[in-house]
Amino acid sequence: MTTSHDRVINFGAGPSALPVPVLEEAAKGLLNFSGTGIGIAEISHRSKEFTECINNLESLIRTQLGVPHTHSILFSQGGGSGQFSAVVMNMLARYRLLHPDVKPEKITMDYVVTGSWSKKAAEEARRLGGGQVNIAVNSREFSKDGKSFDNIPAHDAFKFSRDPALIYYCENETVDGVEFSHELSEPTSFPFHLLKQGSLAPLAADYSSSFMCRPIPRLADHAIIYAGAQKNIGPAGLTVIIVRQDCIVDVDAAAKLGAAPVPITFSYKTLEESKSLYNTPSVISIYMTALVLELMKEKGGLAYYEDLNRRKAGRIYGLLKDGEEKGVFKRKVKAGSESWMNVVFEVLGDDAEKRFLEGAEHLGMKGLKGHRSVGGRRPRFIVQRDHR
Amino acid sequence: MTTSHDRVINFGAGPSALPVPVLEEAAKGLLNFSGTGIGIAEISHRSKEFTECINNLESLIRTQLGVPHTHSILFSQGGGSGQFSAVVMNMLARYRLLHPDVKPEKITMDYVVTGSWSKKAAEEARRLGGGQVNIAVNSREFSKDGKSFDNIPAHDAFKFSRDPALIYYCENETVDGVEFSHELSEPTSFPFHLLKQGSLAPLAADYSSSFMCRPIPRLADHAIIYAGAQKNIGPAGLTVIIVRQDCIVDVDAAAKLGAAPVPITFSYKTLEESKSLYNTPSVISIYMTALVLELMKEKGGLAYYEDLNRRKAGRIYGLLKDGEEKGVFKRKVKAGSESWMNVVFEVLGDDAEKRFLEGAEHLGMKGLKGHRSVGGRRPRFIVQRDHR
Ligand SMILES: Cc1ncc(COP(=O)(O)O)c(C=O)c1O
Ligand SMILES: Cc1ncc(COP(=O)(O)O)c(C=O)c1O
Repeated sequence: MTTSHDRVINFGAGPSALPVPVLEEAAKGLLNFSGTGIGIAEISHRSKEFTECINNLESLIRTQLGVPHTHSILFSQGGGSGQFSAVVMNMLARYRLLHPDVKPEKITMDYVVTGSWSKKAAEEARRLGGGQVNIAVNSREFSKDGKSFDNIPAHDAFKFSRDPALIYYCENETVDGVEFSHELSEPTSFPFHLLKQGSLAPLAADYSSSFMCRPIPRLADHAIIYAGAQKNIGPAGLTVIIVRQDCIVDVDAAAKLGAAPVPITFSYKTLEESKSLYNTPSVISIYMTALVLELMKEKGGLAYYEDLNRRKAGRIYGLLKDGEEKGVFKRKVKAGSESWMNVVFEVLGDDAEKRFLEGAEHLGMKGLKGHRSVGGRRPRFIVQRDHR
Repeated sequence: MTTSHDRVINFGAGPSALPVPVLEEAAKGLLNFSGTGIGIAEISHRSKEFTECINNLESLIRTQLGVPHTHSILFSQGGGSGQFSAVVMNMLARYRLLHPDVKPEKITMDYVVTGSWSKKAAEEARRLGGGQVNIAVNSREFSKDGKSFDNIPAHDAFKFSRDPALIYYCENETVDGVEFSHELSEPTSFPFHLLKQGSLAPLAADYSSSFMCRPIPRLADHAIIYAGAQKNIGPAGLTVIIVRQDCIVDVDAAAKLGAAPVPITFSYKTLEESKSLYNTPSVISIYMTALVLELMKEKGGLAYYEDLNRRKAGRIYGLLKDGEEKGVFKRKVKAGSESWMNVVFEVLGDDAEKRFLEGAEHLGMKGLKGHRSVGGRRPRFIVQRDHR
């Protein structure tokens, strides 16, 4: 029953395109959810029907990503930026409980900075205080022009601290189009082998813009993996947080030992104990995300999407390479560090970007313009490739 | 074009019923928002069309409630519970900047406790620390049985501190069905005249379950008025915060003076400076809330709803009074403290509640059961009266 609804092709990086069958189902659910006679935006988050929905979402993520039972899956409001703070607060609380006597100036948090979002996350850690931010690597130093986020540096460039409270990276940099390779033998993969404590490293990853587009390498070795839904799996309003259980700590006990107080809705323990229903969640975002993941499962799950996305990425980077040889395009990101999700390139020639965008608009393509934070004479174009 | 969609009558207190025309419009907007060819859940929060939508929401609230230009209207995720923390953090930061040398043990925050939600807010303030929580009044002490939230105490029961960083109350207690009278001459009104600093009192009010159902008395004398959308004006995922501009402070400067660090998304200054778009908001919740308020405006605005709600409340409490005389019902809340929005009563007689609920279900009425936190042999029934 898919109709066109006069829709354009939406390349926006986030909020981003959702599958039409999901939107059509949700349109019905707005008026009558799951045969209750109550719309999804109106139903109690404690109702039997919604409980089933949120449990189903949890299990769709757990099964498809293969999340082990050492890790909890939590849902929250507040987006990726909320987690910039929550990750720090919860991990500093954990460190405080493990090492009650270490002074804040001796506590380090290692940030791997490979683009705008990890940079912003590091800034939030610095703002919050309670520990020192160590930039484990800054990829700008390894860029072609010395100032761009256009690469994943080689493994020997990463300098981790001895006993950090947190090691943080962003798997896919939405604005810059830089992503870690998932082939662990590649030089642009994340250097898991450098993590001293093995599987108990306090490793946190922002997967906001690549969540569920393919399997996550070394998932079980992460302390935290989180993603705002609106880039890849649903509407804004939902954040998915996968947390290893030793990182779900009593933040109040930590505060008594000197850690910063944590707002109750930011405490992973609160979320865990309430099954993510401490307070009213964005019911509609949870519902629509479950519909997306259900559809993905039907289509063949992550194996299917990994294959699809690999082919899509191959095709588009191939075209860009051809175009580069012809002097039409210029790829911004070094080969091997290129994102599967967000493709950043320049259109060469006077006025060319403008004409490119106009031509695209003419073909019903929208959301191709680069991120507003990237200035300069030549805007970049971010192509969000719908993976569904 | 209103159709029945097999909907039941939903008395749930929140998430709560929304007008069918809004749901029908939103169902279309899910596939194509404002003629963009992009659905509302998929459109960039920085797009021209969405900017118009959020600006329109701001102005619908400002005009209908008569919010003066001394006050900003901010939008956030995180719900009412998020504000339990944010109010404290921002107001303690403000106090710290005004009084850099006062020690935390000398800073007081006055909480007016008249029900489950203000009690919970006071607990969060205590958890966060940074000041002492003074219970300005606890209405349980004035209840019939000495332990119920069933009344608004008389004005002389309120004991405010001399220079509190915050005075906090909950205008309508959703679970307990207790609400302040809006007639300031009534003994169950909020005792505004007791606030020493007049219009610059640090007065914060939780209006989550009564927002936009009638005008707000002494609105301009409040420092903060906030409401989670899902009780009265839209879907969960949106919190509206009206803040007097002197309460929008530099939380980082305050942290340097010893105040607790505030997560960036909780800082009112961040929200203000970014026009509530520091990060991706729940676009769909903002959109649907704007549709609800647009419809309310068309119907005649707050004057219309005040009149309607007064009549509805009169009618239902009249029926309960009759029923009480016949020994069928028992009202739980003292006369004069009764909520216009949430009506809490008992059905008397063995098995009577069960039969009452079954009968209601038979008539297509759902969500009549009392809040899960209220135990006992006789559950209470909360009637959410749709004011739209
Ligand atoms: C990788 C990444 N992390 C974090 C964020 C911030 O997310 P939010 O807007 O939900 O705070 C974004 C959003 O654009 C992102 O792309
Ligand atoms: C008056 C009042 N305040 C606060 C809350 C908490 O809201 P939320 O669930 O959005 O955190 C509620 C919710 O039920 C409420 O009724």
